[in-house]
Amino acid sequence: MRASQLPLFTSKNDPNDAQVASHRLLSRAGFIRKQGAGLYIYLPFGDMVHRKIEQIIREEMNRFGGVEVTLPVITPAELWQESGRWDVMGKEMMRLQDRHEVSYALGPTHEEAMTDLARSFLQSYKQLPINLYQIGRKYRDEIRPRYGLIRCREFVMKDAYSFHVDDKSLDETYQKMREAYRAIFERCGLKTIPVEADSGNMGGSGSEEFMVASAIGEETLLICSDEKCGYRSNQEKTPFIENTGVVGHSSNNTGANAEDFETKELKTIDEVAKLTGEAPRNFIKAVIYEDNATIVLCFIQGDRELSEVKMKNLSGMTEYWLASEETIKAITGADPGYAGPVGLKHKDGDKVGKKVLRIFYDGHLKGRSGLIAGANKTHFHTKNVAEGRDFVITQGHDLINAHAGDICPQCKKAELTETRGIEVGHIFKLGKKYSEKMGLTVLDQNGKPLTPTMGCYGIGVGRTMATAVEQNHDERGIIWPRNLSPFLVYLVSLAKGEAEVSFVEKLYATLQSHGISTYLDDRDERAGVKFNDAELVGFPFIVTVGKKTVESGKIELKLRRSGEKLELGESELLARLQQV
Amino acid sequence: MRASQLPLFTSKNDPNDAQVASHRLLSRAGFIRKQGAGLYIYLPFGDMVHRKIEQIIREEMNRFGGVEVTLPVITPAELWQESGRWDVMGKEMMRLQDRHEVSYALGPTHEEAMTDLARSFLQSYKQLPINLYQIGRKYRDEIRPRYGLIRCREFVMKDAYSFHVDDKSLDETYQKMREAYRAIFERCGLKTIPVEADSGNMGGSGSEEFMVASAIGEETLLICSDEKCGYRSNQEKTPFIENTGVVGHSSNNTGANAEDFETKELKTIDEVAKLTGEAPRNFIKAVIYEDNATIVLCFIQGDRELSEVKMKNLSGMTEYWLASEETIKAITGADPGYAGPVGLKHKDGDKVGKKVLRIFYDGHLKGRSGLIAGANKTHFHTKNVAEGRDFVITQGHDLINAHAGDICPQCKKAELTETRGIEVGHIFKLGKKYSEKMGLTVLDQNGKPLTPTMGCYGIGVGRTMATAVEQNHDERGIIWPRNLSPFLVYLVSLAKGEAEVSFVEKLYATLQSHGISTYLDDRDERAGVKFNDAELVGFPFIVTVGKKTVESGKIELKLRRSGEKLELGESELLARLQQV
Repeated sequence: MRASQLPLFTSKNDPNDAQVASHRLLSRAGFIRKQGAGLYIYLPFGDMVHRKIEQIIREEMNRFGGVEVTLPVITPAELWQESGRWDVMGKEMMRLQDRHEVSYALGPTHEEAMTDLARSFLQSYKQLPINLYQIGRKYRDEIRPRYGLIRCREFVMKDAYSFHVDDKSLDETYQKMREAYRAIFERCGLKTIPVEADSGNMGGSGSEEFMVASAIGEETLLICSDEKCGYRSNQEKTPFIENTGVVGHSSNNTGANAEDFETKELKTIDEVAKLTGEAPRNFIKAVIYEDNATIVLCFIQGDRELSEVKMKNLSGMTEYWLASEETIKAITGADPGYAGPVGLKHKDGDKVGKKVLRIFYDGHLKGRSGLIAGANKTHFHTKNVAEGRDFVITQGHDLINAHAGDICPQCKKAELTETRGIEVGHIFKLGKKYSEKMGLTVLDQNGKPLTPTMGCYGIGVGRTMATAVEQNHDERGIIWPRNLSPFLVYLVSLAKGEAEVSFVEKLYATLQSHGISTYLDDRDERAGVKFNDAELVGFPFIVTVGKKTVESGKIELKLRRSGEKLELGESELLARLQQV
Repeated sequence: MRASQLPLFTSKNDPNDAQVASHRLLSRAGFIRKQGAGLYIYLPFGDMVHRKIEQIIREEMNRFGGVEVTLPVITPAELWQESGRWDVMGKEMMRLQDRHEVSYALGPTHEEAMTDLARSFLQSYKQLPINLYQIGRKYRDEIRPRYGLIRCREFVMKDAYSFHVDDKSLDETYQKMREAYRAIFERCGLKTIPVEADSGNMGGSGSEEFMVASAIGEETLLICSDEKCGYRSNQEKTPFIENTGVVGHSSNNTGANAEDFETKELKTIDEVAKLTGEAPRNFIKAVIYEDNATIVLCFIQGDRELSEVKMKNLSGMTEYWLASEETIKAITGADPGYAGPVGLKHKDGDKVGKKVLRIFYDGHLKGRSGLIAGANKTHFHTKNVAEGRDFVITQGHDLINAHAGDICPQCKKAELTETRGIEVGHIFKLGKKYSEKMGLTVLDQNGKPLTPTMGCYGIGVGRTMATAVEQNHDERGIIWPRNLSPFLVYLVSLAKGEAEVSFVEKLYATLQSHGISTYLDDRDERAGVKFNDAELVGFPFIVTVGKKTVESGKIELKLRRSGEKLELGESELLARLQQV
């Protein structure tokens, strides 16, 4: 292709909302352009890269047993109502009504639609396993769309859904998808870190994310510092094990009786710690949430943060908020800031007003004593609190956000380290959540109905493209991994006279006839502009032809990644480029 | 591919809403499945055909200078407001609001979005012409989605938009697109009829539709019976010329004065014709529409139908309805049924209530006399009405729906014939409607701002697939044109013993290694089931291997279209299939 046929859309200016390299470079290099908040146009080169990634995904999915279909983007509300997610998905799901006031969602994911398809044709266990996938648009009404293609509102995903007679079959497909994902990301030139992940409101048990390490990542990954252990996990999912080698064992147990003391308007752990000189670790932190049906009161040790994901998974709450002052008063009898486990007037399971109270303790509080907690009395805290005496934990939970320095939950020895990551792929074992709710059954070997178990497997295509740029660029522009580059060669023509023009044209024809995909910059522009654009758009090889070339017969080949320049005869050049 | 990897989704039953062959066969053969009103899942074979059509379109668009991009489906309301179409598009455009209550449309077409892209990078006349296209989803909230893929609410279109310095350049690209479209439909094995078309609310002047002749077509095409003339047009667009060779010249002019006569409750032309014995052609028909700002009163001769499209184009109305009884009384002074041109108390341009009255006469009434019309008086009509004496037509318009038997507006001699058609492609000269409204300018050769003129060019991908089936099927199933067929060969394995299985496997491998795409039906099903499915899914060649094959060495090849059966040795079979 020639620039005169397929124009460059390069720009000298960064978009004013570009905070990250991929957004900045994909925009400046003319691969994408914003058309609204979280809505991006793919310009010709961007479209080419996107389709290359789609094709890699398609090939690997087919190789590992995927069956491609395409579902409508608009999914009837009734399917979401069957699964119960019409209400659960909240504002992130975009919705609309047709002219007859029938409601639809713009699918942010397709578990319901795919289960609906499955129940329309699955009749027998003989048809299983089957792994149906599509490569199509998804919609999520992000509160804060940002980072260009990394967090946008309309994007293309490959999403696959598998159906199985049992967990063994599900696990086989799950392992195949792990292999497929590794192959896909490798072919895309992306280094990914597979980590254990939370499965959120998708339901199900096992789940693994494919992360691209990046300072701009919105996910926190915890990785065991002992490579032999190899534990890698999303922070959301990582069980917290306190590093007692650092914090010391247990606490300041004085044996004294629990005793209220006045703290007036000092409410936070920091404030009361300063007042008492006691370390935050020896406090009991109370965090209270509620939804329309439930109040959840969580107690954890005072120096750590509650994990909302763990709390959600434990409580089953989906749309929730921090408890109101009124709710807090109803369960503690005190103003906010003085909640504690001792002398609570309500117990786990009580009705408080119209809602059910649930009380969860983090397991690390078990057996602790000499603690300070709110006294459930305005302006008072309690000291010398001992678990087992002043309150009792019958079941300890995992409620705390793990972070770097905590103990690895796998080897239980080494410390965890922390890195930031961008999720590009995610595989789940869904279980029977959707098949049960939507009445999907097949007949088993004995002619009895069997509810299939399911898996689902997603890859963000645009996000894969963006993270490839995050991992492959320099100050001059993008450096495309070969399999993603729109063209292999950027041919800079500095030709002026007839001899030079015919040299360029001949070389362009020769490269193409050798199957070397080439973009010929035949614009009427200064050499500097062409070189800058060649570096910015980032194809692997830059070939330059000008007056010198015709005189010497030597063609300049520049390797975009290393910056190395070679002077080669035509046959050497062809040999070099065909090696690739 | 094998049936054990890529299952068949064939079904014994027609969908209960299937009225047409393509809907019935694509569903039964397992290419598509309905998921909601006008919302279709593409199953694996359907997806393959769809992608083949997309690729044919892409290749031809690129060959004829198209530049591929991809725009978001969600388009900001503000773009539609700039062009004025936010209000005009009415209920056919699906709309939604995001969490911040910002409005968007699910693009039914992308003139605005593409013009917005163009103004973001077009600066100079040197960048023109450019023809940007995309292959993407479109949404139209059809009142009555039906006929499967032919009229659905979510579908894939190729839509291209070109930008030009002048009409000459626009015409060059328009002609290229005609060529591209011919090439595309030919490669898809579709016989299309290009016809002159109305450009509706897209704006612009020239416009041509590519029609597939079909009894189920929703469009009426008028074709000159003289092949040498070659005139072909959508009925909506065809100027009406009365065939006076059939109806006779002029009329029953008696010279008598106009005179009211009592018709009581007889209101329709049919009724009054029976009462008076006068032919409907000698009546004046009044048809009255209104919208929020305008009342449009049309007069045409009594034996013909008003063309709403012509009325819309003339009046500029978009969302309108038949005038209310109240409106009719206000302009005629009589009950509905008695409107006529004589003695109207209002004239063209008058304000009637809050609305402006427009009066349009069809040109065929010019010079007529001896006519019967409503008297604008309840229970009365007027006879002996003469144009020029009792009412005056200063400008005659083209308001009547032409149909078969009328005179060809091109050669003005031969009669028109009629056929039904399905629109699969449409090319328009848009002109400057969008570039002007949206402030798109480039600098011309003198550094002065120039507003580019535009063209736009659409093809419905799913509809192309459906019409290919409409044109290519028999009572046993689909007969795919070769370039669209998911596979070239359907290989029916009737193998039982080891020798037979190994024969089939070897043949399957051989076919594939020769680049002959083959679907191996290796299911554990009866021969009859396999043969039926092979005919139903409709790949061009059906190869059968069973016990006899292994014994004789002769392989059965059945040509799906002709039904011809051949017994061939392996090398003959390969030679035959590679010819294709």
